[in-house]
Amino acid sequence: MDAGFHGKLDADQSESLISHLALDIGGTLIKLVYFSRNKDRPIDENKNSKNSVIDGRLHFAKFETSKINDCLEFILSNKLHLGGFRHHEDPASDNILIKATGGGAYRFADLIKEKLGVSIEKEEEMECLVAGANFLLKAVHQEAYTYMDGRKEFVHIDHNDLYPYLLVNIGSGVSMIKVDGDGKFERISGTSVGGGTFWGLGRLLTKCKSFDELLELSHQGNNRVIDMLVGDIYGGLDYSKIGLSSTTIASSFGKAISNTRELEEYKPEDIARSLLRMISNNIGQIAYLNALRFGLKRIFFGGFFIRSHAFTMDTISVAVNFWSKGEAKAMFLNHEGFLGALGAFMSYKKHGRDDSISPQLGQRYPVCKPLVGDKICYPLNGDLSDNDSLECSVYVA
Amino acid sequence: MDAGFHGKLDADQSESLISHLALDIGGTLIKLVYFSRNKDRPIDENKNSKNSVIDGRLHFAKFETSKINDCLEFILSNKLHLGGFRHHEDPASDNILIKATGGGAYRFADLIKEKLGVSIEKEEEMECLVAGANFLLKAVHQEAYTYMDGRKEFVHIDHNDLYPYLLVNIGSGVSMIKVDGDGKFERISGTSVGGGTFWGLGRLLTKCKSFDELLELSHQGNNRVIDMLVGDIYGGLDYSKIGLSSTTIASSFGKAISNTRELEEYKPEDIARSLLRMISNNIGQIAYLNALRFGLKRIFFGGFFIRSHAFTMDTISVAVNFWSKGEAKAMFLNHEGFLGALGAFMSYKKHGRDDSISPQLGQRYPVCKPLVGDKICYPLNGDLSDNDSLECSVYVA
Repeated sequence: MDAGFHGKLDADQSESLISHLALDIGGTLIKLVYFSRNKDRPIDENKNSKNSVIDGRLHFAKFETSKINDCLEFILSNKLHLGGFRHHEDPASDNILIKATGGGAYRFADLIKEKLGVSIEKEEEMECLVAGANFLLKAVHQEAYTYMDGRKEFVHIDHNDLYPYLLVNIGSGVSMIKVDGDGKFERISGTSVGGGTFWGLGRLLTKCKSFDELLELSHQGNNRVIDMLVGDIYGGLDYSKIGLSSTTIASSFGKAISNTRELEEYKPEDIARSLLRMISNNIGQIAYLNALRFGLKRIFFGGFFIRSHAFTMDTISVAVNFWSKGEAKAMFLNHEGFLGALGAFMSYKKHGRDDSISPQLGQRYPVCKPLVGDKICYPLNGDLSDNDSLECSVYVA
Repeated sequence: MDAGFHGKLDADQSESLISHLALDIGGTLIKLVYFSRNKDRPIDENKNSKNSVIDGRLHFAKFETSKINDCLEFILSNKLHLGGFRHHEDPASDNILIKATGGGAYRFADLIKEKLGVSIEKEEEMECLVAGANFLLKAVHQEAYTYMDGRKEFVHIDHNDLYPYLLVNIGSGVSMIKVDGDGKFERISGTSVGGGTFWGLGRLLTKCKSFDELLELSHQGNNRVIDMLVGDIYGGLDYSKIGLSSTTIASSFGKAISNTRELEEYKPEDIARSLLRMISNNIGQIAYLNALRFGLKRIFFGGFFIRSHAFTMDTISVAVNFWSKGEAKAMFLNHEGFLGALGAFMSYKKHGRDDSISPQLGQRYPVCKPLVGDKICYPLNGDLSDNDSLECSVYVA
């Protein structure tokens, strides 16, 4: 898994004011979100209130958790850690706090204090995932889409008819969260068969050097070489009585039971394909079964496992469609991997009074027409084909 | 997977009348059920009707599907295939039919005709699984049990309160069937992650030579070496807010993403253990979610994946207990692997009129007290610690 950036930011970025670094430190990846002010645009005073708005960009980056030192070096050399805040109970203190979520916020708190000299303000992981997803769904145009038969179709999100929905976050493991509103949610299920399983098993079976290489390999593979299909059992026939076609997978990796073929004799691309299909299909099925329990028709899939990978999304979509008989729909998010980090970023607003810039990214409204109310913010006009940054404005308290 | 027998039956068995061979030919295993009459016990005429009862034993055997020729040789040398029946529309014909189910009944019909000179009468797979399960649950004493924390506890089956239940048959793949009565059922779900996945992936990862060797290995393994636990992500802490302890598996095989360790450097027993846990847990979870949909509180697990293996049953039980918060119960069957073959065996009764012996094994009643009604039969006093045969009586039309 490649990090977004490794070295120093370019001149344009580093000269701009960088602030509000938030981290999501997972089992496999560290996700970073931070804001940079456009240096050529002054703060735009809002005449209707004492609040102002700053234009800039929201940046996204990722590092492998096992290479956390590279990540900390990146933060240090670009002074991102200075974009934290001082504790409201002790504003005079030198102790800067930065927002972080994910298990690594606990695991690496001491290391971060030691290397960056800042403390971690821990934000609850599920809360951040939900805040991030709600933000993306409400504030970013063309964020959610369906994917079927190679066709990506953006979904119009009706703000008045968004809840409830099922959020399925596929990281190393998988969390399934029923979301009923802003800050209203319940983690209803999950599975340990997730992105870490794909990459862990895939690495052992194929000797691939990276997650993306494994994903790329799966593109060219044929799962029928290793999976046992209904037709393999039924002599090429469908098992039509129970609605299984001859090409349905009866047993993932079921053909590998043959003692005439060792691991080395299978093509890595076929293995990668079977593995991806097994895991995507399994997640799609468990997600659907959980959606069914609560009558949720919309299922949004996030997390870094997906990576906008066509076959992954297709398999998940087909699984949800197959099991729900067309009743439920799988949807994906352009910024799928950054839900937790975005949620942690947005939690800075809790500290608005002690802080010069409070990023209250909220509902989407036409440019330069901020509405009244503390959740309202400025529009986002992001270049959505680029995950590395998103044009946005922040609300200044 | 070892076959039950390879050579000729012993003198005792071969001198007795062997009849009613039924096969269940799956993707991985062929299961055989046949009846042998005790030669020292004459046919016991039932004075109340023109029907009689024959005492004998029901035999169980299995072969690998890839070694079907060994299986056919076994059948031939013991003349098991002669225990078929003649078609009722053409009783004078020499064409003997034997009952078979599973995909192999289609796939190998020609081979069987060629090698044994008998034709296959195909029985529908789900129908057979259900008939076999209903028979075992109603007719065999101490057939079903729970398994938790190393304790096996037999379950009393109340014949008047058996339905509905969920039958989960774990063969190469997994079928989940809602059973509402004799012959009343619906296949509501399934998963391709089953016994074939365990054995297929396990063989590729460990070089084990047999399913049982892999299962045995898993006994000694430690899944924490390869699985990423909640504590690994959270620095040893629980994630108590959402009820996950530090030892909960966050990501199956998630530690194998580390690029410091190659496949050869992991112990095969640790791999086997992680794999078994992943698959058993996943099946338990999907089974529970399906039971929940239909309000089914009893889940019976069958199929040759389980093999009365303590860790497998424990994992499935814990999964069902965890997800259902104690509401649903996993139960296992002593003759777990032979549901389909037993169901095919019992379908001979359809041909009662054309046949000398019609095995109407039914509800359990005290010895020698056959009741009126065509489903009623004789008791089974099987030695249940021995899967190879079961003492029983058949009903003679």
